[in-house]
Amino acid sequence: MEKRDELYRGKAKTVYYTDDSDKLILHFRNDTSAFDGEKIEQLDRKGEVNNKFNHFIMNKLEDAGIATQVEALLSDNDSLVKKLDMIPVECVVRNVSAGSLVRRLGVEEGKLLAPPIFEFFLKNDALHDPMVNDYHIVSFGWATESQISEMKALTFKVNSVLKALFDEAGMLLVDYKLEFGVDGEGNIVLGDEFTPDGCRLWDKETHKKMDKDRFRQGLGSVVETYIEVAERLGLSL
Amino acid sequence: MEKRDELYRGKAKTVYYTDDSDKLILHFRNDTSAFDGEKIEQLDRKGEVNNKFNHFIMNKLEDAGIATQVEALLSDNDSLVKKLDMIPVECVVRNVSAGSLVRRLGVEEGKLLAPPIFEFFLKNDALHDPMVNDYHIVSFGWATESQISEMKALTFKVNSVLKALFDEAGMLLVDYKLEFGVDGEGNIVLGDEFTPDGCRLWDKETHKKMDKDRFRQGLGSVVETYIEVAERLGLSL
Repeated sequence: MEKRDELYRGKAKTVYYTDDSDKLILHFRNDTSAFDGEKIEQLDRKGEVNNKFNHFIMNKLEDAGIATQVEALLSDNDSLVKKLDMIPVECVVRNVSAGSLVRRLGVEEGKLLAPPIFEFFLKNDALHDPMVNDYHIVSFGWATESQISEMKALTFKVNSVLKALFDEAGMLLVDYKLEFGVDGEGNIVLGDEFTPDGCRLWDKETHKKMDKDRFRQGLGSVVETYIEVAERLGLSL
Repeated sequence: MEKRDELYRGKAKTVYYTDDSDKLILHFRNDTSAFDGEKIEQLDRKGEVNNKFNHFIMNKLEDAGIATQVEALLSDNDSLVKKLDMIPVECVVRNVSAGSLVRRLGVEEGKLLAPPIFEFFLKNDALHDPMVNDYHIVSFGWATESQISEMKALTFKVNSVLKALFDEAGMLLVDYKLEFGVDGEGNIVLGDEFTPDGCRLWDKETHKKMDKDRFRQGLGSVVETYIEVAERLGLSL
């Protein structure tokens, strides 16, 4: 399958049409961005590492019965995926307080959240991805009530699968964001990506940061640490 | 009933203990504040107008079967109320887009919201009253799931009562915030106040602002317009 016209260029991935109208190609670039795109750098091998990492995780989720858009790994930086009509919200689950939760609610970083916290954010860079709730989503027509319920249930199901996976590999899944879309049959399907760019992972013992906070906070060894995460999970890169 | 020690001084009201440990006195001051207390002015008669207006509205809500903390109008600026253990969130319903919704989500002012939008905000001036959701409230222990359900149901019930009341008097209830507390028997009871300080009211035809936006936006005739609202509802001040 070959890349045709560009459909969408995101901050770290470019999405291409293919000759099959139901399939797209995700191209993972080396671009790494933070703070709504204010900090951008090219990190050697990041695209390849995230492409393969995403493929690995999405397969684990498929094995657990969660429908994802991933079809096949095409090359180092490219994956073939099902075309989805993306829902313009991010679904976030937080198991431990960190990041924007700490700033918004004045809680200290590292507090265990029991039960975990679920949040919706509107995907809108110009508005800085504001937090929204079920009522905004329904009233503005971004998704229906039943799609909202399903996105929440799937996001929590991902939590139970991945918390265990990372825990067995000595890591704490602090938080993560997912994006869903609707396929041709109206099913809610997990799209976008799951990589250390879109989650927080800490070493269970030392709380060493093993995710994009290394880039945001200038801690260095970003891609090297992503590779360490992959290797701990049994994926050689 | 006499005022004893001060329990709490808010931005527009002071709450006093009484000789009855189950009762408090709300004293409505002339202080009018906006922008997290950055703009504060004394407006002649505002405390009296809001005290009497609140008593009038709370009685309408009691008549509709909604439990409120209001017991009796004691004087121009004082009301006797049941002591509640206040839940530290504000419950907001928006029938029409205005205010912070417009700024946060980039929608234009005056858009009819169907269905109406419900939002929770944490009462915390230092954090600028951040928006929160059910998960934050449960995870941080601010209220239980059943208390959340009841607050939402009561806030929407208030909407159906007051939308009709203001509509009959030629006004549009754009949005409002309510605060609830728990009484000695564990019941969720409407506390705080319902006045033009905590809602948005527009003239149905001209969309003239008849609420605290007159103060926020420097439109003048603040208390005079509050009195016009009261008089349209049949309350002489």
